[in-house]
Amino acid sequence: MKLLKDRILKDGKVFDGNVLKVDNFLNHQIDVSLMKEIGEEFHRRFEGENVTKIMTIEASGIAVAAFTALAFGVPMVFAKKSKSTNIADSVYLAKVESFTHGRVYDVILSKEFLSNSDRVLIVDDFLARGNALHGLIDIVHQAGATLVGTGAVIEKGFQGGGDELRAAGIRHESLAVIESMAPDGDIVFRD
Amino acid sequence: MKLLKDRILKDGKVFDGNVLKVDNFLNHQIDVSLMKEIGEEFHRRFEGENVTKIMTIEASGIAVAAFTALAFGVPMVFAKKSKSTNIADSVYLAKVESFTHGRVYDVILSKEFLSNSDRVLIVDDFLARGNALHGLIDIVHQAGATLVGTGAVIEKGFQGGGDELRAAGIRHESLAVIESMAPDGDIVFRD
Repeated sequence: MKLLKDRILKDGKVFDGNVLKVDNFLNHQIDVSLMKEIGEEFHRRFEGENVTKIMTIEASGIAVAAFTALAFGVPMVFAKKSKSTNIADSVYLAKVESFTHGRVYDVILSKEFLSNSDRVLIVDDFLARGNALHGLIDIVHQAGATLVGTGAVIEKGFQGGGDELRAAGIRHESLAVIESMAPDGDIVFRD
Repeated sequence: MKLLKDRILKDGKVFDGNVLKVDNFLNHQIDVSLMKEIGEEFHRRFEGENVTKIMTIEASGIAVAAFTALAFGVPMVFAKKSKSTNIADSVYLAKVESFTHGRVYDVILSKEFLSNSDRVLIVDDFLARGNALHGLIDIVHQAGATLVGTGAVIEKGFQGGGDELRAAGIRHESLAVIESMAPDGDIVFRD
């Protein structure tokens, strides 16, 4: 998606530890006109798949999912990071390992909002190793729902999570795939 | 906002402890077509105020702010709940007391995204005692920005936070104000 790649080149900042900061348009401050285009691009890529629900994880996936759901004309749901040790029977639960924070956390989704008749598209802002997406896929399977595919706005291709999803036969679409980046160098996209 | 009130009556569930659950359309599963109307309603109420930025707090304010920002044609920012004790100089910080979780937490916003030239509309999904809004207002003041007003999708009028904002001279708009509710009774709106 050219508009997105141009914006990453213009505003993205690379820091040590494979960190790409795009928080002036994607995940702290949000350029909603760009986000609307992002939602429409996911719709173009997955239309015809009879998607019934867009799913993501709080917090920075919410705006991505909201505009994707708007383009599809379906509801969205977001899984919550749970701090509670008392998990109710009424929720699906998955474990997610956080690369950034170096710990495992629980994500939950109310069983009310996902059933075996749903056809789900999962979207998120970033894909690195794919841990968050794997947690969400686990929840889709627990619900007996159909996974249509997964989408990320930005994929850090060199961290392997996207290629692992594709190798597992999941239809994954990233709107920009970064092949390499360095704090004092260029950001290079995969073709 | 009639569409919203009708939806609260249809899908809202009242539980002990002044809890109104509307998580099948507002803050877990999200009906984005309703949310788009909500954003447009905030725009109708605050247009002509030269708003430059919509501000909210993660997580359930994000979708509200996203569609409000879309209607205004301006960016949105969301304050983050911080778990870190190391707060950088580069962020504004405010304390928020959580009624639900019974503790005080820090909310932060990068200084990059709010300046003294901004005219800010703060929005959130719920207003009870108003603690989250007060934290966000504090950040607007720290930035030297102008607070245009505050907005909530649902105000629990009987908990006083909205009236306190109005008494302080802040222009506050709620799209539905609940006057009273009970687990086995009716939900009554303020006129």
